[in-house]
Amino acid sequence: MRQIRRRTRPGGSVVLGIGDDCALLRARPGEEIAVTTDLNIDGRHFRLAWHPPESVGHRTLARGLSDLAAMGARPLAAFVSLGLPPALVRPGRGGVSWMSRFYNGLLSLAHASGVALAGGDLAESPVALADIVLVGAVPRGKALLRSAARPGDAIYVTGSLGGSAAALAHIAGHAASLSPSRIPASRSGKLDPHLYPQPRLPQGAWLQTRSAAASAIDISDGLSTDLAHICEESRVAAELDAAAIPLAPGATLEQALHGGEDYELLFTAPPARRIPARIAGVPITRIGRVLRHRPSRPALTLLIPGASRPLQPRGWQHFS
Amino acid sequence: MRQIRRRTRPGGSVVLGIGDDCALLRARPGEEIAVTTDLNIDGRHFRLAWHPPESVGHRTLARGLSDLAAMGARPLAAFVSLGLPPALVRPGRGGVSWMSRFYNGLLSLAHASGVALAGGDLAESPVALADIVLVGAVPRGKALLRSAARPGDAIYVTGSLGGSAAALAHIAGHAASLSPSRIPASRSGKLDPHLYPQPRLPQGAWLQTRSAAASAIDISDGLSTDLAHICEESRVAAELDAAAIPLAPGATLEQALHGGEDYELLFTAPPARRIPARIAGVPITRIGRVLRHRPSRPALTLLIPGASRPLQPRGWQHFS
Repeated sequence: MRQIRRRTRPGGSVVLGIGDDCALLRARPGEEIAVTTDLNIDGRHFRLAWHPPESVGHRTLARGLSDLAAMGARPLAAFVSLGLPPALVRPGRGGVSWMSRFYNGLLSLAHASGVALAGGDLAESPVALADIVLVGAVPRGKALLRSAARPGDAIYVTGSLGGSAAALAHIAGHAASLSPSRIPASRSGKLDPHLYPQPRLPQGAWLQTRSAAASAIDISDGLSTDLAHICEESRVAAELDAAAIPLAPGATLEQALHGGEDYELLFTAPPARRIPARIAGVPITRIGRVLRHRPSRPALTLLIPGASRPLQPRGWQHFS
Repeated sequence: MRQIRRRTRPGGSVVLGIGDDCALLRARPGEEIAVTTDLNIDGRHFRLAWHPPESVGHRTLARGLSDLAAMGARPLAAFVSLGLPPALVRPGRGGVSWMSRFYNGLLSLAHASGVALAGGDLAESPVALADIVLVGAVPRGKALLRSAARPGDAIYVTGSLGGSAAALAHIAGHAASLSPSRIPASRSGKLDPHLYPQPRLPQGAWLQTRSAAASAIDISDGLSTDLAHICEESRVAAELDAAAIPLAPGATLEQALHGGEDYELLFTAPPARRIPARIAGVPITRIGRVLRHRPSRPALTLLIPGASRPLQPRGWQHFS
């Protein structure tokens, strides 16, 4: 951690960073502490052969920040536990290790998001993995929850969907010809939605500060699966207008519904609540409505003119 | 996480537990938040062939709790990210999975320590691993730090040392004949110091509440290495009286000096400060003193009658 310690320093919410048994953080009076952890493993959440180390670092942090955004929490500090094969810790081509490039990507997004890396762990592992922990703060009782959707709420999404799955499909389809050195090590174009997704912290903060949203979740597993999470936690059903779903350039409806890893926010708001067309520069689209739960109908329905059908959650499946 | 969610519930410091994007915790007014993460990987921090799953769960949580104890922090909540091969998630002999037994061990210690499991992650992994996160709270500016040792301080340790290394040596020496089913699944005797170590939360809280200790650390890497951490962070040197070091039953001085994983507290206090012979039932032993740092002398000296010598930190080495 010595190398990383040199690249981080206490300040802001971090009273004490790397170098003691614990890091020490300060929230503001009246705030609750929000904590999220996400485990990323080579071959399952990323591929060493496809993802530049900068992208793995960026995506690792983005996944945690997106969970804070979905609660409307502001980040206090990030912690990352890395398990790496020794070859990834040793300097590679150009004298720079995979690990160092991973931290380049992670710290670049941390800087842009105003969050400090305050600790973590590093251990030798036969498989490359990164467990990310984000600690945030949100005024007491004001966090956006999955469980607060009510029948009649309108359903909204930030940005566009399916871009991550479309970019991943492109990378997978060109894996043989696309050498790792030609996959960009920073934001540069059409592969960005997958390699360098932007967590929606300003949009989550906006919704929380104004008590604008009833419920919220981030789209990590896929629209169908994450909307099912809201329905399950809120004990409601929902219907989506297929034609209203904002598709990312090059993305199919299937990718938008089930692709996941878009890290957009999915939220609901009472129908009378005015939601602007953009929040902090990102378009907001109304895509459906929350219904009363009835045993006789599916939890999710996809409205297609003349062909409405039950929508199965077919996004990312964790171990059940 | 569904199974685990059934075995945990919000309450105490946990406002919202498993089931949303983040858990929500509450500290008391005027408290700082203490955060520690520790990564445990099969073959490096434990061995599936040697450690019963209950012990892996217990040790995983103990490692995190011990970091809180060393700061004098009280636990608010624990989070564990598990990466497991599918065979460890499926029910095994007796219909119980390795994972379920891991949680038995972890939740048993959590209950005994008054800390709730408030979240985590679960993913398929070719190697078994558990990343533990502990979030605690400590009154602002009152945490026990590694960096606060001063020349003249006396050096103390809780309990006895080397017991974990001695028990591990026993397990390793009998690995061929000691079938996993004969290694105890809960505290039962001489292997306990390694399989079921007791984090010193009451002792850390006692020292913090009374401002009794100047500096503190937990002995996870080994007395020599952890004392070197205090010396480095406090820019001081130290000497230990070999004859004063409390050896665990069956442990050698080498195991006490370098074995590690005892999870006792090592702390320093001004010489005039009276430290009781026991804190919360655990013996406290004075084992040395803090010296001014001088380039001409080693950071650590071991005092042996007629044979004092520099003491090299030879405990656990992380990636440098």
